[in-house]
Parts: sequence; C-alpha cells; structure tokens
Amino acid sequence: MDRNLYCVIMAGGVGARFWPKSRRSKPKQFLDIFDTGKSFIRLTYERFAGRISPDRFLVATNEAYKHLVNEHLPEVDDRNILCEPVGRNTAPCICYAAYSLFKKDPDAAMIVTPSDHMILDEKSFGEIIDEALDFIDNHNVLMTVGITPSRPETGYGYIQKSDSQVISRVKCFTEKPDLELAEVFVQSGEFFWNSGIFIWKVRDIVAAIERWLPDHHALFSSIIDDLGTPSEQQAVGRVFAQCRAVSIDYGVMEKADNVYVRCGDFGWSDVGTWGSLFQLLPKDENNNAKPESGCFTYDTEDSIISLPRDKVAVINGLHDYIVVDTEDVLMICPRNEEQSIRKYIDEVRYHLGDKHN
Amino acid sequence: MDRNLYCVIMAGGVGARFWPKSRRSKPKQFLDIFDTGKSFIRLTYERFAGRISPDRFLVATNEAYKHLVNEHLPEVDDRNILCEPVGRNTAPCICYAAYSLFKKDPDAAMIVTPSDHMILDEKSFGEIIDEALDFIDNHNVLMTVGITPSRPETGYGYIQKSDSQVISRVKCFTEKPDLELAEVFVQSGEFFWNSGIFIWKVRDIVAAIERWLPDHHALFSSIIDDLGTPSEQQAVGRVFAQCRAVSIDYGVMEKADNVYVRCGDFGWSDVGTWGSLFQLLPKDENNNAKPESGCFTYDTEDSIISLPRDKVAVINGLHDYIVVDTEDVLMICPRNEEQSIRKYIDEVRYHLGDKHN
Repeated sequence: MDRNLYCVIMAGGVGARFWPKSRRSKPKQFLDIFDTGKSFIRLTYERFAGRISPDRFLVATNEAYKHLVNEHLPEVDDRNILCEPVGRNTAPCICYAAYSLFKKDPDAAMIVTPSDHMILDEKSFGEIIDEALDFIDNHNVLMTVGITPSRPETGYGYIQKSDSQVISRVKCFTEKPDLELAEVFVQSGEFFWNSGIFIWKVRDIVAAIERWLPDHHALFSSIIDDLGTPSEQQAVGRVFAQCRAVSIDYGVMEKADNVYVRCGDFGWSDVGTWGSLFQLLPKDENNNAKPESGCFTYDTEDSIISLPRDKVAVINGLHDYIVVDTEDVLMICPRNEEQSIRKYIDEVRYHLGDKHN
Repeated sequence: MDRNLYCVIMAGGVGARFWPKSRRSKPKQFLDIFDTGKSFIRLTYERFAGRISPDRFLVATNEAYKHLVNEHLPEVDDRNILCEPVGRNTAPCICYAAYSLFKKDPDAAMIVTPSDHMILDEKSFGEIIDEALDFIDNHNVLMTVGITPSRPETGYGYIQKSDSQVISRVKCFTEKPDLELAEVFVQSGEFFWNSGIFIWKVRDIVAAIERWLPDHHALFSSIIDDLGTPSEQQAVGRVFAQCRAVSIDYGVMEKADNVYVRCGDFGWSDVGTWGSLFQLLPKDENNNAKPESGCFTYDTEDSIISLPRDKVAVINGLHDYIVVDTEDVLMICPRNEEQSIRKYIDEVRYHLGDKHN
C-alpha cells in the first residue's frame, strides 16, 4: 500500500450476449449470475480492495449506469465515477482515467481491470498482480496479464511471449484466431489469453498514448484543466463526441515496444456467453446447470437453466439447451445456437421496441 | 321461457390437467384460455342466458370457489350458489341441486351442464336443447346430449344409441375405451361422445336417484327441510361427509331404462388437455399455437405456447412441445408426455408444498 496505486474498473459494457438476463438497462457487470449474492463488479472491486483504499478506485462507466455503480459499490465516491457520455471502446475510456489520474498524481501506478470477468483463484491472481507491480516499479513498461489457455478458444485475444521468462516481453497480439490457428497457439506453449488486465505507471501509459494515439492525446490533453472540476462533464462530452473508437489493445499495446506480460493460471473466465457460463457452473447428475431448488427436470441433460428467484420450472425432454426465464422475457435455445441471441434481440426490438433489450 | 326451466352449472372441478395455468386456487372453468375475454364458466352461463333468467341458474361449486363464481357470474345470487364442502363427483352434486329445486318447484325442468367445455356452434346446440326440452315435456325420461365423434378418442365416455331415431333410447354407456374399441365405436355410427349435459324434469331425476342411488336419496331427503334455510350449509356438510362419491353416469344413467340421447355435431370439445386445446387453437405457418404477438419462434413447429400477458418469448428448436409460462411456474414438456403433468404437480407439491398446485 506504499505505492500511489489506483485501480480503474472498466464498467461501460452493454453485455448483449447474456440476454435476456442482461439488458441494456442492467448489463452483465451488474448481474449476480452465479447467485453468490455479489455482482461481477462487486467481486471485481473486492478483488483489489485488500491492497487499494476505496478513494483510489476509479470506475469508468456509461452515464446511464452511474446509479448502478453507486448501488453496487457504495464505497466509491461520485467524484471517482468517470461517466462516459458514449461508449468508444477501451482506449478513450483508459485515456479518460489515465489523464484524470495523471493530473491528480503523476507518480501514480494504475491497474486497469474489466468489471465482468470471473477469477476463481484470487490468491494466485494477487501474487501475479504484486509481481507485476514490482516490475513496473523498476521498468517503464506496460504490463498485461496473460492466462494459460486450457482450450483452443476462438473468441479470445492471444498474447505471444518472446521468451520463457516469468515476465516476458510481448512478441505479438492476435485477436480471435480461427480454430486451426487457435489449436497451433495452444500447442505451442508461447500463446496466452489476453485477460484485458493492465498494470502500468500512469506516466508510461500517457507517454504511450501520446506516441501511438496522438489524436486521443491531443483531445484529452486539451481538457486536462477541466478534469476534476465542475466543467469536467461538459469537456468530456465534447471530447468523446470527437474521439475515435478504438481498443487499447489495437491502439497502443499491439504497437508499443515496451509491452510485457505476466502469465498465469488463476481460474479466469470472461464468462462471455451462456455456453461459457455453463462450463463454469456446477452440474447435476445429468450435466444440467440449474437452480438448486424449484427446477424439476426429466429426460433433460447438458442444459443450462436460469430462472427468476422463487420461480418453479418443470422441464421435460431438452438436450443441450439454454433456458433463460426472466420477469418479462423467456428464451429457449439450443446451446449450439447461442450466437443467434443477437438476432433475437434485434427481432424483439424491431417488433416491440426497446423495452426488452 | 314458459317452462319452469332451470340451469344447473357444475363448477366444482379442480382441472389439474391444465396445470400450471390452472391451479387449485383457480381451476379451468375460471380461465379464459382462448383469450376471448370470457372464462369457460362465463361462456357456459351466456350459452343458456337467452332462454333462462338469471334467478333460475344454480351453480354448484366448491366453497373455495364461491368468490370466483361471484366474480365471473355477478348475475347469480348467492342463494343460488350451491357450495359443496368437498367434491364427491357428479351424483352428490346433482342430488344437491335436484333436491333443492324439487323443494322449490317440483314441476321444474332442469338442464345440467359442465362449466368448462367449449361449444362453437351455439345455434345448433340451442336447437338440440330445445328439442330435448320438448321431448321431456311429453316423456318421463332422462335426456343426455351426445356428440358425433370425429376421432377415436380414448379419453371420453361413449353413448350407444339403440336405434336411428333423432332422439333415441340409450343402449349402453362405455367409459374411456381402449383405442381399438374406440375405432370400432367410431366406425359403427352407433356411438357418440357423452357431453355430460343432461336435460330432465326434476321429479324424474329424483325418482331415478331414489331407485338407483337409494343411500344418496336417503341422505338428501333427510335434509330437505334445511335446503334454502339458514341451516342448509351445516346440513349439506353433514350429508357430503357421509355421502359416497359416484358419478351420475355410473350411479344412474348406466342403470336407468328411461335414458334417451339427442346426438348432434355442434363444435364441442371438453378441452380437457393441452393437447386438445392445441387441436382447437388457430396455428401459425409452422403449426404452432402461440400468442399473436411477443412470441418469436425459430425452427419450432407443432407446439403450443402459452404465456402471461405482455411476456415476450424467444423459442428455438422445439418440435411437438407444450410450453406454458405463468407468473410463478414454467413448464416445458413434449406434447406426447402431457399425461405426466399429474406427476409434475405431485413432485412440485412434495418438494415445495401446496403453493404451486
């Protein structure tokens, strides 16, 4: 806790893939999808709260979710909730946080984390974070955290290490490879999943943005006097309106030559789809992931069933299905068709308006 | 309207086969399952209201449903709602109504009708009722109404005519034949479905009960002084506690030799199961019976889908299913397994108590 260490939680996602449980009005990071009593964003906060005091958390989110951040993280002061007027991918979000911090404390170290991932082995994860923090104390580098891949996942980004050091320079980033390539990646032992967690000194990321995203640097530098003042929101609105949408991976990490990765295996998942949630949940004797009580299944296997609290379900004859019931929407869909969820949302919106998105 | 004509609506059923839409607390006769704005019992009442004034309706039901009768048939005075303390099948129910009427008006004619059947061709039905009423004016007989069978249904009772007269003496009643026998019945042209609708003079049914159900006659005769007085409910409680459960078909109609039937074809269904409802409902181009709006189906056919008002459903990959969603229970079941619904109710009750029955 000696460092000027801050944690930036990125919580602007709209998480359509968990529809109908996630909605535009309550995206995935605010859901308690494992029924633990804590939402993803709450678990994310608590993951770092042992080493970072509440006043050193920044939460970047959409204006529309500010009240949800208040509700889930009451410890975080309103001044530390950075409201993006529109989503512009991760680079503008990180710019907003980095330039705010740079103004406040140019010597700050900064952890950036998604708000909607799962980490089961918090202890191993904590050790990796500590190592990464030690490393940036002594090196002007941009650190990422990689995950030992357990399968040739085609939905993730991969990071290639350049050597076998525990903390290694990154050779290459590859977004969502095809299956053949993913299999080569996994077999090689050189490729790791990109967790989207970054550790760096704020001056190093600002320098990298200046170099690799000069237009973003120009925009955010122009409002540095406004940050932390009553004119902040208006200035940020202006900047986001002009600002190009780009991910920090594409905009900075893939280009910079001082990017390092610490890889590990700490029970990570981005829990990005009903299918990946199914993999993670405990199953009954017929390999169904379903509520502990109130869900009666017959001749049903390999299915994931999500119900509102206190709802009873009787389900007969489903194999490999996703059944998601909510107060206002019921979805029944084969597991291997979950990529159609986007289409369902569009069709429901087309016929019924935005109410059910 | 010249006759002393009364209509007895039997509305004591608990209708478990439409679970989870029907419940012990709101059985089928009180449901508007076709979404017409009128429940089965309301439609039954209106079917006869053209020829019988409101004060000549008697509604026999369970005490627990009296408030529902009040709600659905506000025209019917509380004095004309006969509350059965426990269900004892149709014979005690009809005894209660017949002895009440006999005391009030021994010259009365009486139509007995179930409260949860569907009749599409009200005009033909009305003509048949009129013919039957004319017939009992001149004959001391017990009339039933038969329906020309459209398929070898194994769930119904059958009535065999003894000749080809329009109004014919009944040769035989057969309850729920097996499929082979049902096929023979339908081919023969002599067998008709038993609608459960009866037309008789009250003195004739009382005479038949005295003859064929002497213990029931003794019990109900013993409380004739109480009927229509403040001591009625207590007396009826005593009688029902002692009274043997038996159907009027088994107890009287199968035994009496003055039973006649008027057969016809008037779009009748007992709508006894989700499957029979499926047959009756309009279908989309994939043969799905589903709500007109808010229900989006993909690769789904031959299925019946029932949703709460305003609920949205997205259903992919179901063939020949019943999907019934209600506020507190969701059921998904292959159409050919609907006989399992009784088992589901029992299992839900065993684990969760009576709340969802």
